[in-house]
Amino acid sequence: MSGNSFGTLLKITTWGESHGEALGVVIDGCPPRMELSNEDIQEELDRRRPGQGKGSSPRKEEDRVEILSGVFEGKTTGTPISLLIRNQDVDSSPYEKWKEVFRPGQADFTYQAKYGIRDYRGGGRASARETAGRVAAGAVAKKILEKERIEIIGYTLEFGGIRAGKVDLEEIKRNALRCPDRNAAMTMEKKIEEVKLQGDSLGGIVEVLVRGCPPGLGEPVFDKLEADLAKALMSIGAVRGMEIGAGFKVARMLGSQCNDPIGPKGFEKNDAGGILGGISNGANIVLRVAVKPIPSISLEQRTVDQSMRPVSLKIKGRHDVSAIPRINFVCEAMVAIVLADHLLRQKALGC
Amino acid sequence: MSGNSFGTLLKITTWGESHGEALGVVIDGCPPRMELSNEDIQEELDRRRPGQGKGSSPRKEEDRVEILSGVFEGKTTGTPISLLIRNQDVDSSPYEKWKEVFRPGQADFTYQAKYGIRDYRGGGRASARETAGRVAAGAVAKKILEKERIEIIGYTLEFGGIRAGKVDLEEIKRNALRCPDRNAAMTMEKKIEEVKLQGDSLGGIVEVLVRGCPPGLGEPVFDKLEADLAKALMSIGAVRGMEIGAGFKVARMLGSQCNDPIGPKGFEKNDAGGILGGISNGANIVLRVAVKPIPSISLEQRTVDQSMRPVSLKIKGRHDVSAIPRINFVCEAMVAIVLADHLLRQKALGC
Amino acid sequence: MSGNSFGTLLKITTWGESHGEALGVVIDGCPPRMELSNEDIQEELDRRRPGQGKGSSPRKEEDRVEILSGVFEGKTTGTPISLLIRNQDVDSSPYEKWKEVFRPGQADFTYQAKYGIRDYRGGGRASARETAGRVAAGAVAKKILEKERIEIIGYTLEFGGIRAGKVDLEEIKRNALRCPDRNAAMTMEKKIEEVKLQGDSLGGIVEVLVRGCPPGLGEPVFDKLEADLAKALMSIGAVRGMEIGAGFKVARMLGSQCNDPIGPKGFEKNDAGGILGGISNGANIVLRVAVKPIPSISLEQRTVDQSMRPVSLKIKGRHDVSAIPRINFVCEAMVAIVLADHLLRQKALGC
Amino acid sequence: MSGNSFGTLLKITTWGESHGEALGVVIDGCPPRMELSNEDIQEELDRRRPGQGKGSSPRKEEDRVEILSGVFEGKTTGTPISLLIRNQDVDSSPYEKWKEVFRPGQADFTYQAKYGIRDYRGGGRASARETAGRVAAGAVAKKILEKERIEIIGYTLEFGGIRAGKVDLEEIKRNALRCPDRNAAMTMEKKIEEVKLQGDSLGGIVEVLVRGCPPGLGEPVFDKLEADLAKALMSIGAVRGMEIGAGFKVARMLGSQCNDPIGPKGFEKNDAGGILGGISNGANIVLRVAVKPIPSISLEQRTVDQSMRPVSLKIKGRHDVSAIPRINFVCEAMVAIVLADHLLRQKALGC
Repeated sequence: MSGNSFGTLLKITTWGESHGEALGVVIDGCPPRMELSNEDIQEELDRRRPGQGKGSSPRKEEDRVEILSGVFEGKTTGTPISLLIRNQDVDSSPYEKWKEVFRPGQADFTYQAKYGIRDYRGGGRASARETAGRVAAGAVAKKILEKERIEIIGYTLEFGGIRAGKVDLEEIKRNALRCPDRNAAMTMEKKIEEVKLQGDSLGGIVEVLVRGCPPGLGEPVFDKLEADLAKALMSIGAVRGMEIGAGFKVARMLGSQCNDPIGPKGFEKNDAGGILGGISNGANIVLRVAVKPIPSISLEQRTVDQSMRPVSLKIKGRHDVSAIPRINFVCEAMVAIVLADHLLRQKALGC
Repeated sequence: MSGNSFGTLLKITTWGESHGEALGVVIDGCPPRMELSNEDIQEELDRRRPGQGKGSSPRKEEDRVEILSGVFEGKTTGTPISLLIRNQDVDSSPYEKWKEVFRPGQADFTYQAKYGIRDYRGGGRASARETAGRVAAGAVAKKILEKERIEIIGYTLEFGGIRAGKVDLEEIKRNALRCPDRNAAMTMEKKIEEVKLQGDSLGGIVEVLVRGCPPGLGEPVFDKLEADLAKALMSIGAVRGMEIGAGFKVARMLGSQCNDPIGPKGFEKNDAGGILGGISNGANIVLRVAVKPIPSISLEQRTVDQSMRPVSLKIKGRHDVSAIPRINFVCEAMVAIVLADHLLRQKALGC
Repeated sequence: MSGNSFGTLLKITTWGESHGEALGVVIDGCPPRMELSNEDIQEELDRRRPGQGKGSSPRKEEDRVEILSGVFEGKTTGTPISLLIRNQDVDSSPYEKWKEVFRPGQADFTYQAKYGIRDYRGGGRASARETAGRVAAGAVAKKILEKERIEIIGYTLEFGGIRAGKVDLEEIKRNALRCPDRNAAMTMEKKIEEVKLQGDSLGGIVEVLVRGCPPGLGEPVFDKLEADLAKALMSIGAVRGMEIGAGFKVARMLGSQCNDPIGPKGFEKNDAGGILGGISNGANIVLRVAVKPIPSISLEQRTVDQSMRPVSLKIKGRHDVSAIPRINFVCEAMVAIVLADHLLRQKALGC
Repeated sequence: MSGNSFGTLLKITTWGESHGEALGVVIDGCPPRMELSNEDIQEELDRRRPGQGKGSSPRKEEDRVEILSGVFEGKTTGTPISLLIRNQDVDSSPYEKWKEVFRPGQADFTYQAKYGIRDYRGGGRASARETAGRVAAGAVAKKILEKERIEIIGYTLEFGGIRAGKVDLEEIKRNALRCPDRNAAMTMEKKIEEVKLQGDSLGGIVEVLVRGCPPGLGEPVFDKLEADLAKALMSIGAVRGMEIGAGFKVARMLGSQCNDPIGPKGFEKNDAGGILGGISNGANIVLRVAVKPIPSISLEQRTVDQSMRPVSLKIKGRHDVSAIPRINFVCEAMVAIVLADHLLRQKALGC
């Protein structure tokens, strides 16, 4: 009810602040007798780890995950899986100076307005570090989906105004930005260096592709599959828009263009993005999210302190240039959690 | 859990099929001692009623709402409010012919895949008629918001490829399409007549503006205000994308452009769309949804029947040209429900 | 969240006041393709109807149920089932006189304290009439259980201080009090007439027996089967205690007496009442609830009005002598709902 | 949904197995700006610790709690509070021998039936050790209640067949059994030694008294205060019955005896146990639970292994004689969590 849990039958609860003792996630509802090891989860966390691309901050988060419960002799037992990640390499002193200042584009102002108190160190609960718990939980969700041969791939469709000209899934792992178009990836890298020198940051668009999803997932009318996906993805701090299939393009289509004809072998095109009436239709699920530039920049900014007095803010120190590409893994994780949840819900129907 | 309820403290449950006996909604959690009459709700339903614009179907739904519980001597009592709308003017015979055929762009295929059974009459549960329950519940949510002087206005920003050049809130009620730009509205009307003759349908973009929302609404991290809004809006059948504030434009912005500076009087621009870190910041909330053309068209379409045999489908009869403008009211209703829910959640915090 | 819904995968929401327009229930999560008719539900309602035993009031509630949604061509479709019962034979005038007085043993005082408003007519939402919705929903739950050959039988173990000396399941339907011991039943009937003349009322104990429940139902640790049963039963207005298996007797047992030995054919006795560690063990589930005398009596009572001024209250008119035997059916219904819900939850596990 | 969470606005999620790495609880929904220290929680855990009374096992659990999140500079921030307790002094070897045997009165059989796998070490998830998380969460709930001057006291009303003759609240802390009657306490201690020598175990009755609860808490109709209390208490492993106020005695009362008259100063007696119509009435809340003897005894028992072959079981090693008195604190904790949750729910109503 207080917003730190997500899901119904597969339910995750994340906790933890950026510069607190630790952060973690409790995963409830995972089916029993499924193989699960620390490595399964660590691998996903390592993919997400910062300091790997040119646009990334040098913070050395080791992010070692520890499974504290729910697994016995290498298998899940049906009881809640608690995952712990201790915070390391935490220096909160740079935040001391600005602790009474509301940084633009951040949650400082709104947390203060809501709670009347906030842990200002590293963004506290509002930090992107919270997503480590999501990615860890996503690793478990992916294991559930693997058994049904459902695969999720997130990649960078657009970055700093440069759009991938094609989607070559093989290419994604070959470049640090996870762009499915090698040439576009190279232009993006140049853009990063340029913007980094300026002390500014960049946004982009992440596309997520789901292959192998069976028809029937999604619960009309409020828990439509795209509605739950939208909530899952829009709950990621940097995401400001979400669309499925043809997305915003539908606004300019005719019905005769937008409808996907059905043939004996299934849908003949996929403008629906794999979902009709809130339920998966067996085609690939394709969706996109708009990622805003990260608000922490080195440039001078106009803002106020807690007494609403004007302050000129210039934050030094390490900054990522973009939430991309790391946010790809968070998107993958959230999509995995939604699909695994709906898979279990469909089983409950006995269908 | 089965997807027919929405909200947490203010929770609505809709039920009913397009051609069944009736449809309705149960609203639980409405604060007590609030004035509420049949007229309050009927008024909202009347705004939504079809057969009012040029693009609308001639079905004469009277949609008389009846308050069955939860109101005593004109005031809410804190107990569930049950609203009933009997279905009238229902002729299911046109659907008989196609009852084993999956209409493209509709939920026929997926309901069959999910449940192994479906009420094919008028789209059954997947019909847009279900949104009457949402609009009725939205009327109650709006009453809750009114007390806090929060106002919600939905309008047609784009239709059939024509975009409003300006947003004149006074203009919205003056044209049938609820377009905030009179000239654009006239061009849109022409477009409708053109497409109607072709037997085709049109999509568009609806923008929703919320004025007077206090800071502090929204629950990190999963129940961020924009996440709950996204779910609410993406749960409307025709919606295929949702964005907040600058939305998909953030992908091409620099951080220094995207961040809203804060001055002594508040935010100096509003690319955040009124929400930061998942919590309202006191500025106007601005969001947009992409509405697909309605899939029921008079043109011939390629599809299959329940045995996956090819069928050429040509549906006669009344069809709306677009879910716009009616969907404006559904969007308003869903936004109202989300905000009223979060208002109550914030009260529970004792803040 | 506001307490008018119960269950997780099979979720019911009741609404309605005693003297309002109607009352009803929405049942969400019922599996599709299950046969369901008005008669299935009407039959259960008829069993519950007042005016049938000697201890009952003469109010002629016809309680005609109408299925408004979720059923198509005699089968459930997986969409919410909305059931409506119009209130008839309602004369609220006797309540006018006492509308500012808090009747002892009733919810008058507490509803006023909670909501600052109350529908005083016939007890409003707090009336036992609300349980009609539960019984109607229970009829649906029983259909789900029937398919798995799970059977639920509620009977009157004790009434007005007279306890059944034996449990003869065949006898239950033969007497109006649903007592499994014919001799005890006759003594009970005499007790009723005696107390009726005095203008007083009686309590008792209802036992519920579940046969055919498979092992594995119940979710540790908070949603233990007995915990959900306890909540379900204690949510019935007149119930003041609940126990399972040996119940309160365990307080005086040794561990060696209380533990049920297990043999090759299963449990050798059943002091656990069919549930171990919160999960059904395959033995019969046996539980009991304490039912208080109904608070509406014809005797003079000491109380206060809304200004806390002393009032001497003497209510005329029709009164039941006891919630027994009608409450048997409410208990059966609630047990059925809990079991059907847990059955679906166990299916979701894929076990 | 999977049963490891409890509460609505104040929601706790416990995790962990008896002999796993650790156990803990995540508390979501705690109001911000409330003072909370490790000591507040440790103190409650220390009260619950075994090895303190004559009937207790010598296991030296230090149970050091660590607050991992949700508290900043000694105050709650409104974000989830994660509490961690590492398992220490764990020797699982005694369980190896019986790992394929279902111990009578334990959850071995049912966990195996439900999940097809179980962590047999120390009872795994079904161990009473899980209640450490509840007690830790209860400490937080008590802090919330303290601010409203609501106080909860659990004590041993009956033990091994010996019943307290009076309730002297001062006496409770003076004896190890938390019995409110000194003489009864001494007789109980003798009973313990006797039964301990026999290798057997004992049950009893715990009474919980709540003072200072304001009227208005509890949500009709399913989330009645006594219903939520019943679920909370019946979800404790050893509890087999729960009653409120006069409890099972109501079965033998007349309505005129059972109803509590109301006078200008409030209720003139308290057979309702402080709750009417599911809502607190301002009087003390009084309830009782039946605690079964702990099933781990040293005596020989008849049971089967996983192939349902007969086994004669004799478990050596340390055993508590009873869940009493420790379970007093678990009951207090669960009652505190329910009341704090309903307190927040009532605030959400704006009443």
